Amino acid sequence: MSKKFKLNENRSYYGRGKLKFLPLGGNGQVTKNMFVYEYGSDILLIDCGMGFPSEMLYGVDMVIPDISYLADKRNKIRAFLITHGHEDHIGALPYIIDKISVPIYATKLTIGLIKARLKEAGKLNFANFVQVEPGKRYQIGSFSVEPFQVSHSIPDSVGYYLSTPLGSFVHTGDYKFDWSPIDGRTTDVERLTEYGKKGVLALMSDCLRSEKPGTTLSEADIGKNFEEAMRETSGRVIITTFSSNVSRIQQGIDASIKNNRKVSIAGRSMEQNVKVAIDLGYLKIPKDVVVGLNQIDKIPDRNLTLIVAGSQGQPGSSLSRIAASEHKFINIKKGDLIIFSADPIPGNQDSVYEMIDNLSKLGAIIKYSDITSDFHVSGHASQSELMLMLSLVRPKYLVPISGMHRQMQQYALLARGNGIPSQNIFVVDEGGLIEFDEHGARTCGEVETTNVFVDGIGVGDVGSIVLRDRKTLAEEGIVVVIITIHKKTSQLIEEPEIVSRGFVYMRESEDLMKEAVKVVKKSIGNNGRIKNWMVIRERVTEDLEKFLFQKTARRPMVLPVIIDV
Amino acid sequence: MSKKFKLNENRSYYGRGKLKFLPLGGNGQVTKNMFVYEYGSDILLIDCGMGFPSEMLYGVDMVIPDISYLADKRNKIRAFLITHGHEDHIGALPYIIDKISVPIYATKLTIGLIKARLKEAGKLNFANFVQVEPGKRYQIGSFSVEPFQVSHSIPDSVGYYLSTPLGSFVHTGDYKFDWSPIDGRTTDVERLTEYGKKGVLALMSDCLRSEKPGTTLSEADIGKNFEEAMRETSGRVIITTFSSNVSRIQQGIDASIKNNRKVSIAGRSMEQNVKVAIDLGYLKIPKDVVVGLNQIDKIPDRNLTLIVAGSQGQPGSSLSRIAASEHKFINIKKGDLIIFSADPIPGNQDSVYEMIDNLSKLGAIIKYSDITSDFHVSGHASQSELMLMLSLVRPKYLVPISGMHRQMQQYALLARGNGIPSQNIFVVDEGGLIEFDEHGARTCGEVETTNVFVDGIGVGDVGSIVLRDRKTLAEEGIVVVIITIHKKTSQLIEEPEIVSRGFVYMRESEDLMKEAVKVVKKSIGNNGRIKNWMVIRERVTEDLEKFLFQKTARRPMVLPVIIDV
Repeated sequence: MSKKFKLNENRSYYGRGKLKFLPLGGNGQVTKNMFVYEYGSDILLIDCGMGFPSEMLYGVDMVIPDISYLADKRNKIRAFLITHGHEDHIGALPYIIDKISVPIYATKLTIGLIKARLKEAGKLNFANFVQVEPGKRYQIGSFSVEPFQVSHSIPDSVGYYLSTPLGSFVHTGDYKFDWSPIDGRTTDVERLTEYGKKGVLALMSDCLRSEKPGTTLSEADIGKNFEEAMRETSGRVIITTFSSNVSRIQQGIDASIKNNRKVSIAGRSMEQNVKVAIDLGYLKIPKDVVVGLNQIDKIPDRNLTLIVAGSQGQPGSSLSRIAASEHKFINIKKGDLIIFSADPIPGNQDSVYEMIDNLSKLGAIIKYSDITSDFHVSGHASQSELMLMLSLVRPKYLVPISGMHRQMQQYALLARGNGIPSQNIFVVDEGGLIEFDEHGARTCGEVETTNVFVDGIGVGDVGSIVLRDRKTLAEEGIVVVIITIHKKTSQLIEEPEIVSRGFVYMRESEDLMKEAVKVVKKSIGNNGRIKNWMVIRERVTEDLEKFLFQKTARRPMVLPVIIDV
Repeated sequence: MSKKFKLNENRSYYGRGKLKFLPLGGNGQVTKNMFVYEYGSDILLIDCGMGFPSEMLYGVDMVIPDISYLADKRNKIRAFLITHGHEDHIGALPYIIDKISVPIYATKLTIGLIKARLKEAGKLNFANFVQVEPGKRYQIGSFSVEPFQVSHSIPDSVGYYLSTPLGSFVHTGDYKFDWSPIDGRTTDVERLTEYGKKGVLALMSDCLRSEKPGTTLSEADIGKNFEEAMRETSGRVIITTFSSNVSRIQQGIDASIKNNRKVSIAGRSMEQNVKVAIDLGYLKIPKDVVVGLNQIDKIPDRNLTLIVAGSQGQPGSSLSRIAASEHKFINIKKGDLIIFSADPIPGNQDSVYEMIDNLSKLGAIIKYSDITSDFHVSGHASQSELMLMLSLVRPKYLVPISGMHRQMQQYALLARGNGIPSQNIFVVDEGGLIEFDEHGARTCGEVETTNVFVDGIGVGDVGSIVLRDRKTLAEEGIVVVIITIHKKTSQLIEEPEIVSRGFVYMRESEDLMKEAVKVVKKSIGNNGRIKNWMVIRERVTEDLEKFLFQKTARRPMVLPVIIDV
């Protein structure tokens, strides 16, 4: 990669107007992808994905993009353009489509997967779809939009080429250059070259694997490894992968057929995706190959493959339940071979390894990426491919997207090393606004965004205060102090009562609690009269926190409640 | 590795008596290493390490081995044998030495590091030490003990060869076969061969890297990469590694001297270890090379190296504080090169990557293992080395130790593939008892162990109930219901009061709370009289949990408190 490629320096990129680019997710976190392209009175939104909560986000089920920036711009929004059907690109639509009810442009399979999600959420009526074909042009407001084919780990993936009077933009979506993909659809080098020839103002490119040298292996390498593993295993073969990885599922099924194995599918999301993919012709399974989970005990081990959701160790997923010996139909037995056909995504490592360990305790042989790279290839471009994309598109500006900050920086470093001037590369996190106009491009401040949490059936009602409380509760527990006073005299009429949870085991800490009661009485004051509740609450909190820290070196949440009776 | 090695099948291993082997940690979790060897009326304890709490262990600072098994055997315990000075092998001594006050056998540097820990904890007076030399024999009860030299990522590491009337055992401790270690002390192949010739009943071997093919690289490879990085960097170079990795620190210092850089050390544990290693002659630093942290601003960036603790993202460590822009002396600036000279250990991945991301946002260039393998080599044996150990020692039985379950299984798989019969390999987790006698060896049940948590200054007072509560509090929050009744009539005298934390943002959930009060009143009953507090508490809890789950799909902890006034 030492040869520097030439930029189209002589072309005139600039026309009229101003374009604002804003990631509302994806950048700095990989998942929760959503990007705003704003030109004049038109806004296009690319993708609308969910984020996976990390363990740090106490109990939250899901994170979705914060669309506050768009609140006063609803009438400018023309469309969603969706790149592909992965959860981190479509998963927030059920929570947002009723607020931003504009046409959804996507390819056939992607539409199928979105419909399944919306239907489940009872939101299908808010959506209308435009099924796009790569290479065709769609005029949306002042944008001329052309989807182009890319290869990724799900069929029917596209990027978008956006032309405006100011200039054009290439938004890659997730991609790699797989020359032998399972669905036969390679990344469209020809179209990308043509965009490059015409002059591209900016390339917004996936950079998740910018840390990895060389080229990502082809999906086709996996199939024969599945076959071999199945041939050599006399027990059941259990394959786990992303439930949206239709190509991988196809390969698992093909290998099973060649090895005279029936296939059973476990996991709601896996079943749903398989159904959509079969209905739309993206997954080809002979009818007699698939058996229900309630039938698997009748089939000899050597004739059975299970394809199971939960490769990321998600709580409640099929594989998690199997690992905890809590699955209704699947019990691990000696001789089972479990293949992790997926790498843990950032933030999931710890829970994935814990699950592997538990499965190992149940007696299964397990293949995962620390042991072998035979069973998973990434869907994302490695360093050589990232440089190839740059060489084809030859943009004036480069904006790495959909990576952790370190990965975006790494792509910037690579691009600089290959001749893109520093000042033409913009590394921005979520909320980082970039402005393009006839004079050039620049970052122009931050749009404030917050994580919008989906917890249970509430959207957005768990905010930072609740989470801060959960963090304290998680690490130190809570001490509730109940102070009962007389309504008229404001006089303390009972000993303060102290109850704790998650702090110390109370039965063994009676002395500590007795002392704590004394501390509370002392901070209420000698005459035991409470006039200003606020002041007393603060004083009790402060004194008791101090006392408990001295005694235990812990800082539980202290919650005084004053009751007047 | 296809050639099978020959076992010493014809030797007679068996003599008199019975030996029990029991891991009280290490197995199934890597850290918290402690192993019991019990023969007749003598017990030896190998290592006494701390465990690193995972995020799953809400707020706990540290985990130490559960020594309940030893409670009624105190008078049989003859000694601690310590293999090396890493925290996960010595870190629990300050919490246990006052309960099991027997001589500590260890090498010179290891004793120095233990003394520093004990001194800090005010427990030095409980300890007496026997400084051992590899190759010498020590008779301890009926055990004849010989330490043998191994190479690992800290100098002065040893394994122990234990002879008993029944037979002999080789306990490797952490090791690899590094042929060019920084301290020049290679793993003692000659002694191991001799043990093999004499006949070894069982090999207890480190297996952490059993997933990695080939051979772990030599520590010596790191030095020249440090030098090159320092030469090519015009800014400061910041190296982070395990604070006990004395060899690595030496290499960072040597490379700095060659590049005309001063060195400053950050981190309490790092400073402490460096001091011990210098005092005992294991670390060689010219006096004028080291500068205090308060002096670093006076030194040009190109002439400065910082060696910083916190490579595992430990909360409160120097590097964590630097990443959060909260360090008193060190602020990251553009041009800083940060080298992670350590891999994340299992359970720490998520927090390490989060920290790398934050450092990247501050503008530093960061080298870590996903990008390059130039700056860290493991201290543990890879597959070829594990097989070499087996070939040298040629034991009758193999017990993988100090790995996650999956890694112990992987070692078992390797060993089976190379000719060790399945029934001669024992994979046991913490608490798994193995018995050796004249008839052979077998697992013989489980000793019940629990995690002993050190939280703040309390040891063991945070048990499973408190942690279960913290988990609920963490994920769902708490709802406290205060029910005030009349002392004499048992009649409800106020509206029940409801306070929540970590559940929903209360100001925005007034309606929900009003309804909740109604639910509570209803479950108290029509006449509002409370006779049986227990029954009412249970009913209120049940009804309110049900109501809240219906409304929010969350299951906060419900805590009813009844006050009579």
